[in-house]
Amino acid sequence: MSFVAVDWGTSSLRGALIDEAGHVLDERHAPRGILGVPAGGFPAAFDELFGDWMAPADRRCLISGMAGSRQGWIEAPYCPCPADAAALAGRVIPVVPGRIALVPGLMHSHDGVPDVMRGEEVQICGAIQLTGLADGVFVLPGTHNKWVQVQGGRVLGFRTYMTGEFYALLAQHSILSRTVDPAAPLDAEAFAQGVARSARGGGLLHNAFGARTLGLFERMSAAQLASYLSGLLIGEELRAQAMNAHADVVLIGAPALTARYALALEGLNIHPRVLGAEATWAGAHALHSALTGANAHFP
Amino acid sequence: MSFVAVDWGTSSLRGALIDEAGHVLDERHAPRGILGVPAGGFPAAFDELFGDWMAPADRRCLISGMAGSRQGWIEAPYCPCPADAAALAGRVIPVVPGRIALVPGLMHSHDGVPDVMRGEEVQICGAIQLTGLADGVFVLPGTHNKWVQVQGGRVLGFRTYMTGEFYALLAQHSILSRTVDPAAPLDAEAFAQGVARSARGGGLLHNAFGARTLGLFERMSAAQLASYLSGLLIGEELRAQAMNAHADVVLIGAPALTARYALALEGLNIHPRVLGAEATWAGAHALHSALTGANAHFP
Repeated sequence: MSFVAVDWGTSSLRGALIDEAGHVLDERHAPRGILGVPAGGFPAAFDELFGDWMAPADRRCLISGMAGSRQGWIEAPYCPCPADAAALAGRVIPVVPGRIALVPGLMHSHDGVPDVMRGEEVQICGAIQLTGLADGVFVLPGTHNKWVQVQGGRVLGFRTYMTGEFYALLAQHSILSRTVDPAAPLDAEAFAQGVARSARGGGLLHNAFGARTLGLFERMSAAQLASYLSGLLIGEELRAQAMNAHADVVLIGAPALTARYALALEGLNIHPRVLGAEATWAGAHALHSALTGANAHFP
Repeated sequence: MSFVAVDWGTSSLRGALIDEAGHVLDERHAPRGILGVPAGGFPAAFDELFGDWMAPADRRCLISGMAGSRQGWIEAPYCPCPADAAALAGRVIPVVPGRIALVPGLMHSHDGVPDVMRGEEVQICGAIQLTGLADGVFVLPGTHNKWVQVQGGRVLGFRTYMTGEFYALLAQHSILSRTVDPAAPLDAEAFAQGVARSARGGGLLHNAFGARTLGLFERMSAAQLASYLSGLLIGEELRAQAMNAHADVVLIGAPALTARYALALEGLNIHPRVLGAEATWAGAHALHSALTGANAHFP
């Protein structure tokens, strides 16, 4: 039985029609993130993009991402770690009973401070399926990057890093915006210099000012400084990890971002596997299978 | 002979009429930082605020701060470290020969990345005079904080931390702006929790996200979160220092800021001395004396 998988984030909406074997039959996306949906407007926004896919009376849909947040369609309480696909499937929340359900996000605490994700948990389930890895470090770059510890096929815990948002703030709103050109393509050498600078310590609060002075003294161009700043931030994120060179690392995300993380990791002699959108659909398929097998119940 | 000292920063302009013994006879300020002065408008802006003070034909003026930058009145090349008041006095740049001169900023490099200050060097000279300390760590909180190593009465080197700017970016422009109330007064306990969180590691990119989730789970109010975020940032700045509990530490700046650094340092059993605007005027007096003594020459 084919089904519809939807990843409804803060700023974008993506969906796929997937057959019983997990093959993607069709894909759609629209710039209709939850921030662009008015109160009460979720059913209409959903119908507009996926109404025809949902026409068959027995067609089901699983939605993940920020659509399950307080500002979303219906709030889906977080699932605690450790958790795997079965645990997530057991906690999906009905939106239209028997037809549309929301996948909960994951929650994990460090020293009493909670950490959360919404949507990435489906990508991780998919990446476990696609790579066959039951143990490893799964990294999901983005505005709020996730570093996820997977053991025995379950998410043990994770940490969020605001690396993508810090980059946008610094490149667009700080004093660095005067000397940094965020539209420039990646300069691998300047990027590596940034990563190396962070690895030597000094701290981000100090090192970021170097992206100002290197411009002031014309040691780097605005294009180079964009890559240098990106390297500083990703280098700072790597420095916070207790990286084990023998651990399997899986990068999941948009190619432009995963390429930067792969570059930085290769500098530590770590050679990650890289996945893209296919991880989301594979994860949704795993959850859907868990909800439609024998003894299973789609809520 | 009394003289005029001016501290002309990015967003504000302050001046004092100071007598030969260093007593401040009068003080003025205006929201006319260099960013608010049109090209070629520096003489008029100066006259408007200080014209009457400059009426006596032998009255001199020393200007420090961003007025000596490329976007300022006249660019005053940076003085390299190590440097003391005499070295700075020897490099002042005439603006109106014999009447008005600009104090150069300081420059110092780490691993080939330059660091700079403009204006703080005068405050440090003043703080050395006022405290009688020839050795110590001088800290100048602000948008771009300076941590300065003083030895034998000279500035050996320094590092800039963008702590103040990061706070403004995160509290006003990031996702944290939804749950943080930057107008709230200091909550000492939430601040201490932020400092302690940074001291345990994890890195700013991760810890900052905690200021989001603690709000999401209603563990802290928007007022508490502002102090928590401030503590995270100042704690991260402290963590980057190799602090010696026996070192003399001098804080120089606005009371609302120095109070936060004093709180954080006291948690490390370091009891700093605290100075305000008087350090600027004492430093200008030291430089002026060096420029008007026997064998000296006001450029």
